[in-house]
Parts: sequence; C-alpha cells; structure tokens
Amino acid sequence: MEIEIATIGGYEEVGRQMTAVRAGDDVVVFDMGLNLSKVLIHDNVETERMHSLDLIDMGAIPDDRVMSDLEGDVKAIVPTHGHLDHIGAISKLAHRYDAPVVGTPFTIELVKQQIKGEEKFGVQNDLVKMSAGETMAIGDENELEFVNVTHSIIDAINPVLHTPEGAIVYGLDKRMDHTPVLGDPIDMDRFREIGREGVLCYIEDCTNAGKKGRTPSESVARRHLKDVMYSLEDYDGGIVATTFSSHIARVKSLVEFADDIGRQPVLLGRSMEKYSGTAERLDFVDFPDDLGMYGHRKSVDRTFKRIMNEGKENFLPIVTGHQGEPRAMLTRMGRGETPYELDDGDKVIFSARVIPEPTNEGQRYQSEKLLGMQGARIYDDIHVSGHLNREGHYEMLDALQPENVIPAHQDMKGFAPYVDLAESMGYSMGDDLHVTRNGNLIQLVE
Amino acid sequence: MEIEIATIGGYEEVGRQMTAVRAGDDVVVFDMGLNLSKVLIHDNVETERMHSLDLIDMGAIPDDRVMSDLEGDVKAIVPTHGHLDHIGAISKLAHRYDAPVVGTPFTIELVKQQIKGEEKFGVQNDLVKMSAGETMAIGDENELEFVNVTHSIIDAINPVLHTPEGAIVYGLDKRMDHTPVLGDPIDMDRFREIGREGVLCYIEDCTNAGKKGRTPSESVARRHLKDVMYSLEDYDGGIVATTFSSHIARVKSLVEFADDIGRQPVLLGRSMEKYSGTAERLDFVDFPDDLGMYGHRKSVDRTFKRIMNEGKENFLPIVTGHQGEPRAMLTRMGRGETPYELDDGDKVIFSARVIPEPTNEGQRYQSEKLLGMQGARIYDDIHVSGHLNREGHYEMLDALQPENVIPAHQDMKGFAPYVDLAESMGYSMGDDLHVTRNGNLIQLVE
Amino acid sequence: MEIEIATIGGYEEVGRQMTAVRAGDDVVVFDMGLNLSKVLIHDNVETERMHSLDLIDMGAIPDDRVMSDLEGDVKAIVPTHGHLDHIGAISKLAHRYDAPVVGTPFTIELVKQQIKGEEKFGVQNDLVKMSAGETMAIGDENELEFVNVTHSIIDAINPVLHTPEGAIVYGLDKRMDHTPVLGDPIDMDRFREIGREGVLCYIEDCTNAGKKGRTPSESVARRHLKDVMYSLEDYDGGIVATTFSSHIARVKSLVEFADDIGRQPVLLGRSMEKYSGTAERLDFVDFPDDLGMYGHRKSVDRTFKRIMNEGKENFLPIVTGHQGEPRAMLTRMGRGETPYELDDGDKVIFSARVIPEPTNEGQRYQSEKLLGMQGARIYDDIHVSGHLNREGHYEMLDALQPENVIPAHQDMKGFAPYVDLAESMGYSMGDDLHVTRNGNLIQLVE
Amino acid sequence: MEIEIATIGGYEEVGRQMTAVRAGDDVVVFDMGLNLSKVLIHDNVETERMHSLDLIDMGAIPDDRVMSDLEGDVKAIVPTHGHLDHIGAISKLAHRYDAPVVGTPFTIELVKQQIKGEEKFGVQNDLVKMSAGETMAIGDENELEFVNVTHSIIDAINPVLHTPEGAIVYGLDKRMDHTPVLGDPIDMDRFREIGREGVLCYIEDCTNAGKKGRTPSESVARRHLKDVMYSLEDYDGGIVATTFSSHIARVKSLVEFADDIGRQPVLLGRSMEKYSGTAERLDFVDFPDDLGMYGHRKSVDRTFKRIMNEGKENFLPIVTGHQGEPRAMLTRMGRGETPYELDDGDKVIFSARVIPEPTNEGQRYQSEKLLGMQGARIYDDIHVSGHLNREGHYEMLDALQPENVIPAHQDMKGFAPYVDLAESMGYSMGDDLHVTRNGNLIQLVE
Repeated sequence: MEIEIATIGGYEEVGRQMTAVRAGDDVVVFDMGLNLSKVLIHDNVETERMHSLDLIDMGAIPDDRVMSDLEGDVKAIVPTHGHLDHIGAISKLAHRYDAPVVGTPFTIELVKQQIKGEEKFGVQNDLVKMSAGETMAIGDENELEFVNVTHSIIDAINPVLHTPEGAIVYGLDKRMDHTPVLGDPIDMDRFREIGREGVLCYIEDCTNAGKKGRTPSESVARRHLKDVMYSLEDYDGGIVATTFSSHIARVKSLVEFADDIGRQPVLLGRSMEKYSGTAERLDFVDFPDDLGMYGHRKSVDRTFKRIMNEGKENFLPIVTGHQGEPRAMLTRMGRGETPYELDDGDKVIFSARVIPEPTNEGQRYQSEKLLGMQGARIYDDIHVSGHLNREGHYEMLDALQPENVIPAHQDMKGFAPYVDLAESMGYSMGDDLHVTRNGNLIQLVE
Repeated sequence: MEIEIATIGGYEEVGRQMTAVRAGDDVVVFDMGLNLSKVLIHDNVETERMHSLDLIDMGAIPDDRVMSDLEGDVKAIVPTHGHLDHIGAISKLAHRYDAPVVGTPFTIELVKQQIKGEEKFGVQNDLVKMSAGETMAIGDENELEFVNVTHSIIDAINPVLHTPEGAIVYGLDKRMDHTPVLGDPIDMDRFREIGREGVLCYIEDCTNAGKKGRTPSESVARRHLKDVMYSLEDYDGGIVATTFSSHIARVKSLVEFADDIGRQPVLLGRSMEKYSGTAERLDFVDFPDDLGMYGHRKSVDRTFKRIMNEGKENFLPIVTGHQGEPRAMLTRMGRGETPYELDDGDKVIFSARVIPEPTNEGQRYQSEKLLGMQGARIYDDIHVSGHLNREGHYEMLDALQPENVIPAHQDMKGFAPYVDLAESMGYSMGDDLHVTRNGNLIQLVE
Repeated sequence: MEIEIATIGGYEEVGRQMTAVRAGDDVVVFDMGLNLSKVLIHDNVETERMHSLDLIDMGAIPDDRVMSDLEGDVKAIVPTHGHLDHIGAISKLAHRYDAPVVGTPFTIELVKQQIKGEEKFGVQNDLVKMSAGETMAIGDENELEFVNVTHSIIDAINPVLHTPEGAIVYGLDKRMDHTPVLGDPIDMDRFREIGREGVLCYIEDCTNAGKKGRTPSESVARRHLKDVMYSLEDYDGGIVATTFSSHIARVKSLVEFADDIGRQPVLLGRSMEKYSGTAERLDFVDFPDDLGMYGHRKSVDRTFKRIMNEGKENFLPIVTGHQGEPRAMLTRMGRGETPYELDDGDKVIFSARVIPEPTNEGQRYQSEKLLGMQGARIYDDIHVSGHLNREGHYEMLDALQPENVIPAHQDMKGFAPYVDLAESMGYSMGDDLHVTRNGNLIQLVE
Repeated sequence: MEIEIATIGGYEEVGRQMTAVRAGDDVVVFDMGLNLSKVLIHDNVETERMHSLDLIDMGAIPDDRVMSDLEGDVKAIVPTHGHLDHIGAISKLAHRYDAPVVGTPFTIELVKQQIKGEEKFGVQNDLVKMSAGETMAIGDENELEFVNVTHSIIDAINPVLHTPEGAIVYGLDKRMDHTPVLGDPIDMDRFREIGREGVLCYIEDCTNAGKKGRTPSESVARRHLKDVMYSLEDYDGGIVATTFSSHIARVKSLVEFADDIGRQPVLLGRSMEKYSGTAERLDFVDFPDDLGMYGHRKSVDRTFKRIMNEGKENFLPIVTGHQGEPRAMLTRMGRGETPYELDDGDKVIFSARVIPEPTNEGQRYQSEKLLGMQGARIYDDIHVSGHLNREGHYEMLDALQPENVIPAHQDMKGFAPYVDLAESMGYSMGDDLHVTRNGNLIQLVE
C-alpha cells in the first residue's frame, strides 16, 4: 500500500499545524491550526470575517493547496487537542473536505464553539467524538486509534493510523506525565506495544527538544503553586492569579488552593469562562458548586464591585492576562480600569511562563510595571511546559523505534536539537530522518 | 548603650562573611568565612599551610584588622551554618580572639573538622554547641538567641543579639521554607515576635534579591526529583546522581528515591562522606543502615568495581562534581578514569544549579561534554536555591520592621535590587538603609 | 564657604536629571530633565497640558521640593545639552526660579522650542547663550565655566562651578571623543588643568560604567556606516535609513554618504525636521542647499509620492522610528501606511542601537517583522554610544583627581560598576564616594 | 557529465572541513581540516603522533571513508586558506591520495610547515602554488579557478570548479570586504560573471548567517583599533596587545599604530612568530626591518627582560592568548610567570572576540581576572568577524544565482538561519537547497 505524508503547515513555524497522511486511497488530516501571531501583528484584523485565502497569504492558516496533489479521499479531520494552533483553522478549511472532524469530547466541544463564531463560511462537517483508547476504521484496511497523552490542556491524544505497512504515529503536543493532576497518565504501555507492532513513521513536536532533561509533571507545578499560595495564607489583602485559560488542571489547582487558604475563587474573563465552563459541563473537572465564572465585561465588573464590597481578602480572582496582553483583564487591572483596587502589598500570581518572543516580553513587562505601580507584589513562572524536553523525546524514540521520523511543530532552528538527538540514536537525515518544510509530500512506501 | 556594627567581610562579595556587633563593651562576631574562588584562581595553593595575612591579601578571608578600632571584648564567634563561606576562616582567625565559637551542633562539628585540618595555626577556642531556640548571656546586659531558619544545609540559624536598644538580627543565608524535608520550618512566629519587641538592626543576605517571587520550598525540589527518578524506574542501566555534598536533605531524598526505584544508593567522594557521615552520626538524618559512604580514592574505586560486578542497574552512586570541578568524581567518570563504565543511555542527574560564573559554566560544560561522549543522558537543574527571593525579603522586612537595615553577602550590583525593595518599603539610603563595604563601622546608637 | 549638593533627580533612574549646587549663598541648578518612559506607559497622556505636581507624582520630572531646604538664591539653570532627559522639565519647573537658563546656543534653541510648546505654564526665564570655553560669574565669588565635551548631540558641555573651595565638575553625558565628526574634540587639556587646580567634587554619568574598554569615537561609527552604505552603491532599489533625530553628526554622515552613492537624501518626520533644521539654522552643520526636511504628515506623504514617481533608487529617506516606535515614520512604512512602497530586497539601515528595555525591544522587533514582511533587508546596530565606558571613567578620574565623587544618571544597579571602579582607584564609600538617591543633600564643606 | 558532491566533514560542526566534488572521472577535494576542540577536551593528547583512525574516532579530522564510494580519481586537494580547520588534517589524510595539494602561496607555506611537524605519517604529495585569478586544468574537461576573497587570514580564495554542467563554487570562509587592510578586495565582479555563466552548485559557510546586516570591513576594525591606541598615546606605562596570530592584517595594524604612538612593537609567542614570519618572508606584508619576533620561551623571556630594562613605556608586546588559553603568553603574564611586570593602570588590548563557547568564555574570564589582579585595564572586542553575515549571504546568492545550494561549516542550528534566507529567496529544501550531514553523497547531475 502506498503511504504518503503531506506536511502542510507547522513545519516552518509553531502554529497553523496541518499534516495529511495517505494510506492507499484513504487520507486522514491531522490538525488544522491557526498562527495567531501572524494575525495580531496587523492592526484591526478580525479573522471571523476573513476568507481562507487571505489568511493563507498572511501565513495565519495552513496552505492546504498541496492537498490537490494527494490522490485519495479525506476520511477524517483529526485535531489532537483543543489549542488554537491545532483547531483554529477548522472553521476556515474543513468545509472543503467531505469528511467528519473526529476528536476527543473536549476537543470537539471547542471545535463546535469555534465553528459557531465563524462568520464567513458555513461549516457542515460532522463532528464525531472518540475517546482515548478507542478506534475507528478508515477505509477498509486502515484504523485510527487515539492514544492518551498528557499536555497543558485536558483530553489530548496522539492519533495513530494503523496501516498494513505499519503505524503512523502523529505525536504532536505532549508531555510525558505519569502523575497528571487531571485525567490519566500518558499511555506509555500502549506506545511501547505499538512500537513492538512496528511503527512506519513518527511525526513529532520539537518545541522543547533543545531543553535538557525531562519536562516535570503537572504535579510538580501543582506542588510549586501550593507552596506559593500556602505561603500567602496569612495575607489579608488582595490576591489575584492568572494562567492559561485552557489549562484546566492548573485552574483546578488554583481553585483548590484558594479554598485551602480561605478564599473564594472566581474565574473572570471571556476565555476563562469558555474553557472552564466547557470542562465542567462535560464533567472533566469537578469544581465547587458555587464557583463563579464570568466572561462578559459587565458581569466581570459587577463581580469586581462585589469583591470590593465584601472584602477582597475573601476572594481569589483568577483572570486572563498571563502574557500581558494589552486588553486582557489583568492588564486592565494594572491600568486601574476595573473596579478592583490593588493596594500596596497585594499579590499577583502568574502561573504561566512568558512565551519567549520580544512582543510578549515587552507586553508582559509593561503589565508587571503597571501592576507594580499599583503596589502589587509579583510571583511569576509557576509553571511547567506541556511539551517534551530532550529526554522525553529520547524515551519516545526508544519506545516506538520508528522506521521513519519527521520533526514538526517548529522552524528549522527548532528542528536542530531534535535532529541532533535522532542522529545520536542512529537516524540519518536524507534517509529515515525527514527534515522538511510546509507543502511537501514524503512518500514512505511506494 | 552604644551599638556599633563592623562590616568586616562579605560586603563586597559572596564569600568571606564576617560581621562584628558591639553592644556596650561586648562584641559578638558573626561568621568567619572563606572566599574559595579567590584561592582556586591560583595554581597550587594549599590554604591549610598559609598564613592569615597572605590569605587576607588574596581576598580569601576577611580582613579583620578593623576589629582593633572596635572597643570592647569579643564574647563569642558565631557561625550561622556550616558552609565554607561562613566557617572557612575560623581556623585562620579565631585564635586571635579569646572567645568561644558558638554554633549549632552540626555547624560546630564541621568547625571541629576544619580546625583539625589546619596545619599553620593552633586553634584553641572553646567550641560551644547551642541549638535553635536557645539563648546565651553575652556580658551582663545582652543575650544571644538562635532562631531556626531553613537553608540548603541543616541546622542553620539566624543569631539575634538582644540588647537594651533593641535586637540585632543577623539574617544571613536562609530560605523561607514552611515544609523543609529535614528539620523544622523557619520560625516566622519568633521573627514576628522579635519584630514586635523591636528590632534595632537587620543585616540581610541579598543573594537572590533580584529574583522575582519566592524561593520554593525544598519540598518542591523533592517533588521534582521524585518525578525525574520515578520516571527512570524501568531503566535497566546505570544511573548516577550528584548534588551539593553538604545538602543533607537533598542527599536524603536521593537515597530514598533510589530505594523506591529499586536501587542501592552509595555516597562517593571525600566531601560526600564527610557531610553525610557527620549528619548521620549526629542523628540529623536517618539513613538506611547499609548505606555505603566512601571518601578515599581507593575505597571509591573498589566500590565502583563492585558496582560493575554486581550490575550497575542495581545501584545509584551519589557523587561529587555537580559544578564540573575538574578533579571531582563525576568529571573523572566522564574522563573514563574510574572503574565505573558509562554506556549509551545511562542517566546522570545533576540535582544542583550551576553557580553562574564563567569559570563554573566552562567547567560544567566540559563535564557534560565528556559524559555525553560516553553516552550519558543529562538531567540537570533539579534544585531550589537556599536564599530568599525578593518576596521573601519583603516578608522578612514586614515581619521584623527593623529600624535599620544593612544589606550584606553581595557586591554592589547584588545590593541594588535589595535597596530598591527596601526603598519601596520606606527605607532611605543614608538614613536607615546602610549600604556599606568591607571594613566599615556603623554606629547605630551613640 | 559652605558647599552643598542637592541630588534632585536622576539618582534612581536614567531620565529627569536635576542637581543643584550651593556655593555660599549662590545656587546653580544643573539640568531639568524628563523621564519619557514614565509618561509613555500611560495611555493618552499629553504632558504639554499637565501640571508639574502630577508629573512629579508620575516620576516623570524631578521632585524639586528639596530645593526649599537649600538656603541661597538660584543664579542659573544650566542644561548640559539638548536631550529631553536634561531639558524636558524646564517648561514645567523653571518658572519657579528667578534665574536665567544658561546653555550653549544649540541647547538654548531647543529649550526655546520646548517652552513654546508648553500649554500649562508661562515660562519667562531669560535664556542666555554661552559657548564652550566661556565663563560667567555666579555671585561674587564663584564662576561658571563650560568645558567642551563630545556626546551624541552637538554643542554639549560639562559645566564647572569654580568656587573658593575648589571646582565642582558636573560631568553628565559625554564620550571621550578625540575625532568627533562634528564640533571639537573633548577638551581633556582643560579637564587636566582643572584637575591640577583642584576639584572638590565630580558628579558623573554612570550609564556605561559596566562596559569594558572605551567608547569608540563617532569616527568609528562613521567608518562603519560608510562601509555599509558604500557596499550598497550598486543597489538599484529603495534604501531607507533611520537614526536618532538629535544626532546631527550621524545625520550628516548619512547625508554625505547618500550623496557619495548617488542618492538624494531627504529628512522625514517631525523630530528629524526639528533637530536638523535647528542645527543648520545655527550653522552647526553644513547640509547641501537642496536637502529636504519635512515634518508634517502631509508634506512627508507628498515627498514619498514624489520619491515613488521619480524613482526610489534616486533617494535616501532618513526617517524617524529607530526604536520601532509604533507611530513613527519607519513603523508606518512597515505597515504600508505611507506612499513609499518597499520591494523585495530594499534596504533599511538602523544607525542606532535598541535601548535595552523590553518595551523597546518588543516594538523594534515588531517593526523589523513588518518591514521584513514587505521584503526589506535589515542593517542594524551601526552606532556608538554617547556615554563613557569604564576606561573613559578611569581616565576622567585620573585627570580630575577629585576630592569627592558622586555617581549619577543611573539606578543603584547602574552605579555598581562605577563604585567598583572608583573603589579600585582608592575612593571609599561613605567617605569620599557618595552613592546617593533623589532628594538628598550632601554637605561637602561646612 | 555526472556531478556528485561528497560532504565529508564540517556539515555537523565547525572544524574538520572536507568536501569532494566529482565531475565525470575527476575528483577535487576541498579542505582537510582539524576540529581542535575535539582534541583539547582530552588531557595530554599530542596529535602529531596519532593515527588518522583514532583522530577520526575522536571527531577531530574528517572521516574520509566515504571517498571509496566516489568513483573517479582525486586530481587535487585544495585548501581554501591556512586556518587549521581547513588544513589541519592534510598531514593525516593527504598521503592516502595520489594528488597534489594546490593552494595559494601563503596557504601552501603553512601546509608545508604542518607536514614538517607531523611525526606519524610521511606526506609526499606535491605542493603546488596557485594564486587568486589563476586556473588549472582538472582532467580534460574541467578547470579549477581561484577567486580572490577576503577573510581573517591573508591569501584566502574560493575555489571554483568549472565543469561542462556549470560551475561548482566552494564558498567557504569569507567576508565581503571592499577595503581590506592587506591584499585585494573580494572579487565580486568575477563572482557576478561566474553567476552569469551559470553556477550549478554553491557550497557556503553559514557561520554568521544568523547575524543581521553585513560584516564590517577590516578597515572598520582598523579604525576602531586606531581609536583605542591613539587614545593611549599619552600613557607612560605598559601596553600589551593580543590578537589571532594568523590575522596578519590585524598584526600589521597593531605594528603600525604602535609606531604611531611612539612604541616599538614586538611579536611574542610561537604562533605569532610562525604566521607573521611566514607572511613577511613571502612578502605579503611589509613590517619594519627591526620588528622583533620571538617564539621560543627563552628568547621571549629574554625580550621581556630587555623591555623591563629599557622601559616598558617604549614597547608594545603583541602576544598570544586572546582566548585566555591557559598556557598562552598573556595568561602567563597574568599569572606573573614572565619577567614582564604589569603595574596598576597598564593596558591590555584584546583585538579579538571570545569564540562563544563556555570553555573559552571560562578561560578568558580567568585570564582577565588574573590580569586585573595585577592592575591591568582591559580593552576588548576590537574586532570584526571573517565570515559573512546574513546580508553578505543575500548578496552572494544574488550574484551567483546558483541552481543548487549546500549550506556547510556549521551544525544544524547554524544552518537554520541560512535555510531561512535561501528559502526567502526562492530555494526549496529537498529540491535545490540541500541540507545535509557528514558522509553523504549528493548527485547533482546523473
């Protein structure tokens, strides 16, 4: 059976991931993501109303025109998890393919919401939920399996396409976490089993390949966060926290430790409400019954007023703004634009790391400056990454023993340390280690 | 009563700490430390045989000649804990003073060993053990108290000299740890009480004043280390670990996790044997009965041979060399100079951070290169600092409300962020915030 | 005669410089500067209409309330050169003092323009021009002298107040340039002479004290710029350059090399027109007769249209925007908001260094990204600093041999390397080396 | 005609360059270099006595075993210039090939000296001198041409193999210098001409591809050096300078400026004597008749003694040790191991940049510390690179318009920015942009 990989997006950048695998006449598309930074650099761009081709020209969504070179029918569009760089282009591209979107329940829910917000295209693809551990036939001879992985969002999987020629493991976006705070540990047993059955190709996310050691478990971040929050137990002023809205495990830890130190947690900001609300509705997390979540500006401000009235020492607002985004809640608090008043000595907890790019660094710096001008004390960097470090990659290659390896989810500089690693383990560029770019076809079996 | 502070050493550098406090006619000396880097930059220097004056000229030990300007009698020499930069000059300087060395039991034990190794001077001072929480009269009107603190070595205290004019808190070298792995949490209650009683002066270690947030608890490092070691549970080759020899809590965690993952821990290297042996003898830590500790080159090599014979998959050697020191055990292993043979895929765990100075960074880089050439996989930076970050300093000032503050244990660049913090809390340079240098006298009460 | 120094502003930051010297009954004020970053962090602030007290509260201008503690009459307000951090608060503070503003001709001209733009206060102080090498009596016993120095703006001086107790040298903002491109070399002979006559106090700008070596001459930047521009001689598309508008020597080099490579230079942007226009009107620089300078948006756009019509290969627009300021000309070009169209391969020359602060770095990064998206090729960092490096400071101290030294123009971290240097030359903190903060009085002679 | 490229060494590192080009039956080998860092990491290694295979195993010299897969006869071994990473393996590998070593006169002279020092192998290859601009027939159909380039060593060329299928340009190690201090400017006219004739393949050194702008001309470094040295004209103590021994243009500038400021230059250190002596003997540089050059320890020490006797204010020793190498002359001076005594205020000029690798950085830091302990003042970083920055690469690709591009002389991370550049100019990985590794064959024409 012919096996071909189309590397459509995310092979020259982080963002706009998209990869298609053809096994005989069947094609599966993995991810359709958005590169948000390509949008934000322009003033006043509203993606909801834009045409795909304009977004492709901007480099914001994958250029899927290479798909026409791929003979075969798309049988499924498979986002691996709910982050925008993996699902954000579905509303712009999926309607071109007569195939369902297949994802885990949480991911599908987020896809649904994204499609709802779309104003340009009508997206009619079926949305099919499939959980980790389950499988689905792809044509007559292939099978799609979801293997549970751990990442900075819940319900993440690595899809595996089992073909007669061996498995294709699409390995994007995971940490090797044996003690995650929410959900099951990464299913290394299944990966090792698949490795023994035979892996034709492994496509891997190189984000942290240059970082030594292993990415710590979310339990380590949780222990760190606990240490910070418990140390503030006696503080009788305001404490505010921020983290990635989609990071439900972290939000859960914040909520629990707030309770432990005698404060009522409240989630504030549009995306806080969206992700946590969805997770709770789908029973992925068990929040206290009275946990408030407010997204609209008005209800947020009303909540802030209530907090000020009832005494801010009784609350822990968990807000958006961890990267210092100019219009996010925390930045607005720093500018004194909300009813919440910061006093000298109040604490701000960033349970997040600055994404290392000068624009973010500048904005975050400004945000911390503004908060500091209000008297706030800053606790930052209470976080672990959602991506494998070098030794995680080493272990994955060791477990899967793939015949072919394709580094992804980075630019060339990001591929470099992964290439070094793979070569040190016997792979060889131009042979079984395929360093490639957006828009290429790699024929693995002819 | 006249109160005067002599800032003898450690006010222009990290290393060679020494401060004297005169309260009326009584003088207490805090710390007598060694700046090892000033020794190591020279080839072939053996401090054991050197005269104090030569070491003073090298900048290696405190220049205590300013003591002659201080009227009064030295009543005690008080090292705060057992690190070399706090006790390393006792064998060179203490004999000049007719006063006992007063320290916690573990510290005194290390002082004793250091004096034993001294070849130039006969040091006859009494060595007096006093534990955290205890007090001692200093002359008729003053009292010395030891307040328990948490640091990267056990049995650390902050000495407080209670005078009729208020307390002098000598705050060097601590982390605010409420959940240390060994010993008691920092005694913040007592600090707050002393704060309410009235603090005339607070002398503080500025090492991490420029780092945001709070220093995590040793429990966080332990959780991180556990994550790394448990993730290696299935590995059936060699695993080697290194950390600061004097960091007994960390050694203890390494020993316990080794056991958890089915490996027998062994401590190797002269200083590993010295510190852990001492801690065990004094009952500060409860190691397994059969824990091997070997310091001499011959017994180390014999142990390595035994490990190779019995199968290195059954052992966890815990060795010296975390900074890549050229002659330390781990570096020798990297050079293939020991009987322990590293194979492809073997793991090396650095439970330590590189001390950020180009010499160390160069040596550590070389060490990792050599280990990598043998096939080793590196896990590094599994560590938390023993020094307060900015928010810890904020909390200490808030707790003590001292009348005067003296930054210490850094150079001017290191003082800068502490000065910024103290000023933001209302202190004022040239008034109650005393930025000073080695060799000065500060008269607090005339 | 009593001599006192009031360290009013710029002793905790770069920006809002202000120092007063009292010699007997006469007071001279050196500099009244603005800290622009304290303004820009707020949205929508217009300093022209703001009251001094609000600007003081923001930390934007010096808090001159300490002046009431200084007995004596202000005889002169002396800005050292025309940069905003030295003259930017004159329009807000000078009217409080019954004294002339005394500066070099170029500086006075810029002060005049600044006062003209002021909308809140009526500033009526006399504006007195005095050139380098000239002197003025200050009361009966003191004399003010201007010594020529070299900086990144023309007509910069170091004022020296000669008193019966020795000279007070106010040494802010200079490079030791023996071959400046415009104006005379730094007058080291006069400094050495003053040193021999006796210097009571030297107040020094520490900006680059941490940088090794000496700051290169403007001739070196010019040689570098020549190398870049000549290398582009054969390019037949667009070339655009940007630099500090007030850096007339650099603008002159750009203008000359433009001519050398067959392109007509044009200065575009409000501040480009202001500074270069002023310099030309006062005969500080000899530009070609037909050199266009356009400040208003409309005339700039008209010029861009003309350039596009006549062929951009014939022009070198020299524009504002070297720090990536969001609304500056070059950033607008990057956004495609001007009639000038960038094509693939067009060159953009940044004859400037990014001021190392995350906000600037973020903005400059965005600007370069936008220019790159238009196809532009970037040549950056063609620049030398206007401030002394460490060895320049060493030479100044060696030449002046001052009795007292006061580091200025930095925060504490910035003072640190200067303190290290001064100490290594025998000065001693707390004695003749005065590390101080905003708002203090230092009595040198009682 | 079949054209094949064997990428033997330097495609995974900087060091041990070696590339072979087969055009029909004729093979030309470009460079045979040594990776010195792979040698130095081991203690006590003497390469002179080592076998090639051991050095190959260490990664120190190219693994030329792939040559056996290349059908055809080696007609020439062509080092591009005299740096060790281009000629250092000739004495270990050249004897395996029945072909002359063809290089420019200076390069050949250095090859000759290297062969002389070899103790393991007898190297009998003819050594043929050919100058820039000259050509040589390679078999019946191909021609080898030397195009003049500018680098940090004199007499550097880029060899071009003209084949019936187009030119192969081996572009390693150059800066685009239109005003070099010694020798002719880079021959861009000839490159453009070759570009018009048709370039089949361009092999390029990526060292600085990640650095923005263009590499400045040696004239800029010379102007910078002049600025530093002239500024020291009045200093009446010791001045010492160091630079790359092989950088004859820089040595010449140092010698000339020494004379200008009234000091007698002397070259000290084994490699100083070797390179400058060779350059002078071959008439590449015109040094003053009485310029002393001393290599042997004894004559160096004798010279130092003479300098101390006659007054060190009359001399400028130009010595080895710019990277802080532990046994080099300058480091020994820092340790006080030579008769030259440094006094407070003496100047040390590093006309070199630290090669950015932790080992060097550590050693250089130590060296500067030691010099500083003797009182020396440091002037560093007076240097320009010998390698093209990004815009130089842009111009080369623009001039040559090659059909195929092969990045070289770096690891994968170093290739990354070059790949970005080439792609932005229309090249495409996997098609005409060949990112490859050591030991591969690339068939360009079948």
